[in-house]
Amino acid sequence: MFYTLNVHSTRREEMIDITSDVVRVITKSDVKNGMCHLYVPHTTAGITINEDADPSVKADIIDRLRKLVPYGENYRHLEGNADAHIKSTLVGISLFVFIENGRLMLGRWQGIFFCEFDGPRNREVYVKILKEG
Amino acid sequence: MFYTLNVHSTRREEMIDITSDVVRVITKSDVKNGMCHLYVPHTTAGITINEDADPSVKADIIDRLRKLVPYGENYRHLEGNADAHIKSTLVGISLFVFIENGRLMLGRWQGIFFCEFDGPRNREVYVKILKEG
Amino acid sequence: MFYTLNVHSTRREEMIDITSDVVRVITKSDVKNGMCHLYVPHTTAGITINEDADPSVKADIIDRLRKLVPYGENYRHLEGNADAHIKSTLVGISLFVFIENGRLMLGRWQGIFFCEFDGPRNREVYVKILKEG
Repeated sequence: MFYTLNVHSTRREEMIDITSDVVRVITKSDVKNGMCHLYVPHTTAGITINEDADPSVKADIIDRLRKLVPYGENYRHLEGNADAHIKSTLVGISLFVFIENGRLMLGRWQGIFFCEFDGPRNREVYVKILKEG
Repeated sequence: MFYTLNVHSTRREEMIDITSDVVRVITKSDVKNGMCHLYVPHTTAGITINEDADPSVKADIIDRLRKLVPYGENYRHLEGNADAHIKSTLVGISLFVFIENGRLMLGRWQGIFFCEFDGPRNREVYVKILKEG
Repeated sequence: MFYTLNVHSTRREEMIDITSDVVRVITKSDVKNGMCHLYVPHTTAGITINEDADPSVKADIIDRLRKLVPYGENYRHLEGNADAHIKSTLVGISLFVFIENGRLMLGRWQGIFFCEFDGPRNREVYVKILKEG
């Protein structure tokens, strides 16, 4: 069971909550117990799970990544987005969440975020649901 | 096959070896070949695999993360644990290890560590074992 | 279906493209739809997916990691490779890619890279292919 989510970013760096899109795919799949795998087929973006209650957490993550890997420094890659590639490797492009009784097993404060590091762009997230047993 | 491990941290930042707990779950599951997936349902913690021989490796990881993402800097998130959220995204909250012939396929020096970034707290790690074939 | 890839690094820090090796394993497995899981059984190396077109991206990632986690600083671990252990935790040692119609579902610019942080060494990457359905 393979699906593609479309994500539209509107800024250069941005964390976009895709939790409800993922939940929709799981509902559609009708899988009760299994695994939901998420994969970003891009090299200047990432995916992470973090707090989705206070939006300032997203801002702090973006800010700190910008401090650790500044935009426009003296990189060798000449397309102006070397920082975005490096952030992609630091944050990662794949993760999984468990499905139990048809429910995504996120923690109480967790949401799933697509991390744009070189937007605005139209992006995709691949989703594969594996049924258990 | 879904299990929950309980982890008790005693300091604000701490790497706790949970390898033997994971091995116990695999033994109980009686799965000979498959995958062991680990998932942290928290937003101020992480999970990693690294050396479990010399404990100074853990101290170096904690120290360096503290340098890269200092506690108490000028973050927007006002709960005093913005650094912990950022570290969670850098380290990650999910990983897997293979199971072959009933054995966890860790490398010679590898152990599995729960990473506490905002303790002390009572924490959980979700475990799902998938049987192969 | 469990395989081992051999990787030979020739420098202390190096990103080695292993995409074609992974493709070869998938072809051999004859799995049409499923998951390809990759796992590094070492504590001073990592694995990542990033751009494989311009080699300067690899150089920028290595350089930035060296800036964030300098070699030879005042670490507690006395084997001289504490930086490599820390980088391993930042980059991660496991990832997965989907298989659809016998094809590895990498994005257009993506390649799979073994990340050597304490070479030169002979290294391994474990591969497990799970068949879907």
